[in-house]
Amino acid sequence: MDTILKEIVKQVTPLIGSGEVASYIPALKKVDPNQFGIAIYSKSGELYEIGDSRVDFSIQSISKVFSLTLAMKHYGESMWERVGREPSGQPFNSLVQLEYEYGIPRNPFINAGALVVSDMNQSRFASPQHAMREFVRRLSGNKQIQYDRQVADSEFEFRARNASMAYLMQSFNNFDNDVEKVLRNYFNNCAIKMNCVDLAKAFSFLSNKGACPHSGERVLTGQETKQVNALMATSGLYDEAGNFAYRVGLPGKSGVGGGIVAIVPDQFSVCVWSPELNKAGNSLAGMAALEALSESIGWSVF
Amino acid sequence: MDTILKEIVKQVTPLIGSGEVASYIPALKKVDPNQFGIAIYSKSGELYEIGDSRVDFSIQSISKVFSLTLAMKHYGESMWERVGREPSGQPFNSLVQLEYEYGIPRNPFINAGALVVSDMNQSRFASPQHAMREFVRRLSGNKQIQYDRQVADSEFEFRARNASMAYLMQSFNNFDNDVEKVLRNYFNNCAIKMNCVDLAKAFSFLSNKGACPHSGERVLTGQETKQVNALMATSGLYDEAGNFAYRVGLPGKSGVGGGIVAIVPDQFSVCVWSPELNKAGNSLAGMAALEALSESIGWSVF
Amino acid sequence: MDTILKEIVKQVTPLIGSGEVASYIPALKKVDPNQFGIAIYSKSGELYEIGDSRVDFSIQSISKVFSLTLAMKHYGESMWERVGREPSGQPFNSLVQLEYEYGIPRNPFINAGALVVSDMNQSRFASPQHAMREFVRRLSGNKQIQYDRQVADSEFEFRARNASMAYLMQSFNNFDNDVEKVLRNYFNNCAIKMNCVDLAKAFSFLSNKGACPHSGERVLTGQETKQVNALMATSGLYDEAGNFAYRVGLPGKSGVGGGIVAIVPDQFSVCVWSPELNKAGNSLAGMAALEALSESIGWSVF
Amino acid sequence: MDTILKEIVKQVTPLIGSGEVASYIPALKKVDPNQFGIAIYSKSGELYEIGDSRVDFSIQSISKVFSLTLAMKHYGESMWERVGREPSGQPFNSLVQLEYEYGIPRNPFINAGALVVSDMNQSRFASPQHAMREFVRRLSGNKQIQYDRQVADSEFEFRARNASMAYLMQSFNNFDNDVEKVLRNYFNNCAIKMNCVDLAKAFSFLSNKGACPHSGERVLTGQETKQVNALMATSGLYDEAGNFAYRVGLPGKSGVGGGIVAIVPDQFSVCVWSPELNKAGNSLAGMAALEALSESIGWSVF
Repeated sequence: MDTILKEIVKQVTPLIGSGEVASYIPALKKVDPNQFGIAIYSKSGELYEIGDSRVDFSIQSISKVFSLTLAMKHYGESMWERVGREPSGQPFNSLVQLEYEYGIPRNPFINAGALVVSDMNQSRFASPQHAMREFVRRLSGNKQIQYDRQVADSEFEFRARNASMAYLMQSFNNFDNDVEKVLRNYFNNCAIKMNCVDLAKAFSFLSNKGACPHSGERVLTGQETKQVNALMATSGLYDEAGNFAYRVGLPGKSGVGGGIVAIVPDQFSVCVWSPELNKAGNSLAGMAALEALSESIGWSVF
Repeated sequence: MDTILKEIVKQVTPLIGSGEVASYIPALKKVDPNQFGIAIYSKSGELYEIGDSRVDFSIQSISKVFSLTLAMKHYGESMWERVGREPSGQPFNSLVQLEYEYGIPRNPFINAGALVVSDMNQSRFASPQHAMREFVRRLSGNKQIQYDRQVADSEFEFRARNASMAYLMQSFNNFDNDVEKVLRNYFNNCAIKMNCVDLAKAFSFLSNKGACPHSGERVLTGQETKQVNALMATSGLYDEAGNFAYRVGLPGKSGVGGGIVAIVPDQFSVCVWSPELNKAGNSLAGMAALEALSESIGWSVF
Repeated sequence: MDTILKEIVKQVTPLIGSGEVASYIPALKKVDPNQFGIAIYSKSGELYEIGDSRVDFSIQSISKVFSLTLAMKHYGESMWERVGREPSGQPFNSLVQLEYEYGIPRNPFINAGALVVSDMNQSRFASPQHAMREFVRRLSGNKQIQYDRQVADSEFEFRARNASMAYLMQSFNNFDNDVEKVLRNYFNNCAIKMNCVDLAKAFSFLSNKGACPHSGERVLTGQETKQVNALMATSGLYDEAGNFAYRVGLPGKSGVGGGIVAIVPDQFSVCVWSPELNKAGNSLAGMAALEALSESIGWSVF
Repeated sequence: MDTILKEIVKQVTPLIGSGEVASYIPALKKVDPNQFGIAIYSKSGELYEIGDSRVDFSIQSISKVFSLTLAMKHYGESMWERVGREPSGQPFNSLVQLEYEYGIPRNPFINAGALVVSDMNQSRFASPQHAMREFVRRLSGNKQIQYDRQVADSEFEFRARNASMAYLMQSFNNFDNDVEKVLRNYFNNCAIKMNCVDLAKAFSFLSNKGACPHSGERVLTGQETKQVNALMATSGLYDEAGNFAYRVGLPGKSGVGGGIVAIVPDQFSVCVWSPELNKAGNSLAGMAALEALSESIGWSVF
């Protein structure tokens, strides 16, 4: 595995420089683009890592999987009355479909869907932000995990597009709590800082039928685990899920911080990270690394 | 396996009566809705079947996988300049996205995408319809396979929506041949009559790394096989691909004739058939049967 | 004129009962639907009225003409960088076009456009709500004009759709002030209570080349007057402007409170009112009355 | 009047060179862009002209008014079941709205609407093309009027977009005749060659309550005349009708050949022509000329 990882770093590093770091909020723009890391965690607890795998970054949309998992545990199948399970075929922040489909977002991984999931968690937890942080710390086995207040504040300041979506859903009676309060918690979750190792461990329950390999905690049932993986496979990479399935063939979830998590069911959870993004908003070097990994190890589920 | 199949028939049969047979052309409406069949074909050549597994039906959109396979063999990666690989998030026959995205259909399994693929095959084969028929006969090992002329003529008569798509793509320079000629061949392919056993066998190369188990013919490379399966997984069930991944967890392709084919990679190819459709246009009993099969045998790739 | 008015009342009254009073906020639902009034004011100061012409009602979207007039006086042609002058061809509260057209609303009479105009006035006036009230009182010559606080509060409580639009425009940098503050002023203006006579007088500058006949105040230049009338003619009746031009042939502006104001250039300003609306959101009896008036007096500008 | 016309030529000529001649078909591209003409015809028969007012050009979409007039004469109000009377708020050749609104085009002046009107005329006339030519010759008093076969053939060759619309409407049961046959007649009408004087005369019934001033023929009733003018006012200039009302204030109809016809109700019919178009597809110099004319003579209906 170490040989493969070294080979991939050699192959992928030249790509750095051809993408662009997320710039929609000032706080994200400051990251050094010249970074790249991989962590692979097996369901029996082996950890493989290379490069900047211990450097913290903003997990951004990867947090949507944690929010979804929390909501599934509390709402079960009933949650699907408020959010769909279909790919959107649209940019992640479009309102067009939301208007035509009466305020029901297509899936929990586009922004509108994640906002509805946050609204559900807001209704359930006294402090949803606290609940989330505890959850992520347990999943990753790292009690030091924090969110970046500066990033969160910056996201809140530039909240207009997400606020617009939340209010549109409210106008269709699909948003129960105060919009600003939910947005605040949503952005705090997006601003959580983790590194590749943290994320590989935190997602390992999805490569182990729902149980956390390092702690033994049962997070989801085996069936729910397959369901979350299925949702990531069809909708986890913004408007590039089809391409990701075609090139990598694994369930995955990306964030504009440059992280991508992928699951090799019953075997591994993987996290790659490099801050520069392609046009679809996914880590450019990260995509290439996962494609090479999947091909050389034969990971595709298809 | 036989016990499982019997159990599934018992479970699924009561659903017949709650869907609706496709009625957009008169010729399809006449089928007896009270039919249900399953065929499972392993990569080592075992065949399991139950119910109406030897009754011919109109394969309709399932033919899109055959057309795509033919085109991939001849065009390779270059074909993706003319058709995308992303889920559409729209009804299968919508023109809206096609106009906004300059005549490039989202994937080869929505109608517009299949028409572009047919246009490619038209450019490549002297008689694309003949090429297709020979191809399907070889894949299934059944030399008797024919198309239903009455269905094909009826589809051509009611071609307006598909003609509209083809001309829209032509207006964006993404359609090279005479529209009526391509439509004729496209409808003839949709009107091919096969049964569950034929289809399970014809799709078996996709469960066997690209080689036909019964004939040994190499149809696609191993990587291409994964790619076709990935495309089916993200876009194979009209606007219900996400739900199919969530409930069944397999690459699949459905047709309005009531057939659904699914692939258990490296293991099985499966065909279920029952004419009544759900609102998304997929076989109602077929979906339920595949869900039950996947759960009881643990087939989900996720 | 009085004979004509009596004839029209006889003709139109039977229509009452076939429309529906606006019900999107509770406060508007309470109005007695069984009311109908007309006021006609000539540029030389004659007033003709019939029916419930002195009963106050909620002017709602009719206020958009006052806001536009205020903004034109202060911003001149520069205001058209932030809002268009074209009919929308969409429901008045749609966000679809707003997203496709980068946050620039199609015209000042759809909600999004009126919100941008309110945002402009917010930037210009210390108290835009006070400025508006003073303006309307001067235009109508009625110092008692007030807004209905209960209606305004109810609109603010159900502000989700309008808030969504405002934030969407803010995400495109086409909204400068605090969203909630602008919405509050916007709703207060919609909740202004006036009667047919007030409105006929208040709009009379548009039938008199920009000068108020009763006070002599120059409100707009002759050219600006034509421009406001042109905007009303192409976009003043929600998604029924074409039909209004076809049937009535006059510039006009309607509100969901059941009022419609129309201008006979260089001759008359007219206000009709009846609370029940047709499907496009325009007063059902009001439309019929204006059609009959226009036909019997030969008012159409075409 | 002659002084005014000379002044306008001086004012407008410098604009030539800043627009672009229509180039979607090769046959239109060949026109000399350096041309400009005006003809004004009063309802009492006076003719004023300047510049290239006797040079023939392709009337293109201006023909839609003739087709509409023919259809109104034969179908009356019943025609509005198949085509709307509202501005579209969309590019003239968009299919998006047509799909969302079930194949009913928004108005008779966008392409889809004109195709439905052509389909109506096809059902009514043995030779609709012959009927149209006779009609236009009578209206203009010029028996030499012909269509340009080369332009018509070229339009037919590049018919894809219009064919797409016609088939889309057929799929919604709003198209009765053979698509290719209707398209052929439609393009022949678009390819009619007329000059400014021909067009000013041919449209003069719309400035004279429906009767042709030079022949006395009653073409439409007075009310129908107002209706056609109203339709032109709200939808006659593609997606620039609002701007035209704002700047010019007259009912008008433009074509991509560079002609614009405008009506001063009860006074004049006007035709301006210059081949270069602005971004909305309307004659750049023509728009400026009409704006200057309207302002200097005080023609705006508002």
